[in-house]
Amino acid sequence: MTETLSLLSAAVRDVHDFPKPGILFKDITPILSDGHLFRLAVDCFVDANAGKKIDKIVGIDARGFLFGAAAAYRMGVGFIPIRKKGKLPFETEAVTYSLEYGQSVVEMHVDAIRPGEQVVLIDDLLATGGTAAAAACLIAKLGGTLLEAQFLIELEFLAGRKALGPVPTRSFLKY
Amino acid sequence: MTETLSLLSAAVRDVHDFPKPGILFKDITPILSDGHLFRLAVDCFVDANAGKKIDKIVGIDARGFLFGAAAAYRMGVGFIPIRKKGKLPFETEAVTYSLEYGQSVVEMHVDAIRPGEQVVLIDDLLATGGTAAAAACLIAKLGGTLLEAQFLIELEFLAGRKALGPVPTRSFLKY
Repeated sequence: MTETLSLLSAAVRDVHDFPKPGILFKDITPILSDGHLFRLAVDCFVDANAGKKIDKIVGIDARGFLFGAAAAYRMGVGFIPIRKKGKLPFETEAVTYSLEYGQSVVEMHVDAIRPGEQVVLIDDLLATGGTAAAAACLIAKLGGTLLEAQFLIELEFLAGRKALGPVPTRSFLKY
Repeated sequence: MTETLSLLSAAVRDVHDFPKPGILFKDITPILSDGHLFRLAVDCFVDANAGKKIDKIVGIDARGFLFGAAAAYRMGVGFIPIRKKGKLPFETEAVTYSLEYGQSVVEMHVDAIRPGEQVVLIDDLLATGGTAAAAACLIAKLGGTLLEAQFLIELEFLAGRKALGPVPTRSFLKY
């Protein structure tokens, strides 16, 4: 596992001043573009969920789709997309949350999760945790049980775990 | 195969007047949310590529990420995201294309594909083919060979294949 994480960590590319000046962005596309590394990354999620009774994987638009869908495929469970307002075609449940400047809205289809279903939330990166906390709120609104929130990367200095409150949170690469 | 396609086709949900009045939208989320159906859908792509020498799967933001990333995982090859302008952090190549009203721009990282690499393009749906043709153009700009463009659903009356010109095109569910 340590070797896997070293390989993955070495592949993450630092991009300065993206999406705006002063931000150091963790670019995961070098992991995606290498078949071996991508498989290792997805298997981190798959292995973390071994032995649990999981009904659905919930992934956040758009990079959460990459790891979440591949893990759901491997695990043989359904995948539920969370998207920005207006992107999902059917009836939705919505949660509004605050960003550094202004607000954002995420949505999930109302029939995406049945009450009592056990789900895992997957995204590529945990930063301030705003979107992840909104996702957790959506899952709760639909009556799902969020077993764990899982991230390939966690920017620990942004304290995103705090925003997720009591939700068990796991990340594989920490900065 | 026929049985698989019947199962998948039966799960596609028609949503009227999305994203705007008069449009009948093919909603694939019922396929995603069912672990068995999602696996069947991804395996359509995987099986279509069996025996080919493929270096990368290219997927289009955001629904193309779902099938493309899962297929890449299964096939053990790298995944390359194509995204709307401004979403990719590193240096990009861009292609501008026309929409019904106005224009759009898609981008790919400049180091995503090496000259001579063989790639397959995956998206959920082929409509007018504008985005897919722009994606094909991006792949060509980076020196990649596009073996085939593959779609879960094809809206044949919109003639998207024509927009793709000489690119071999395959779809599994046709309307």
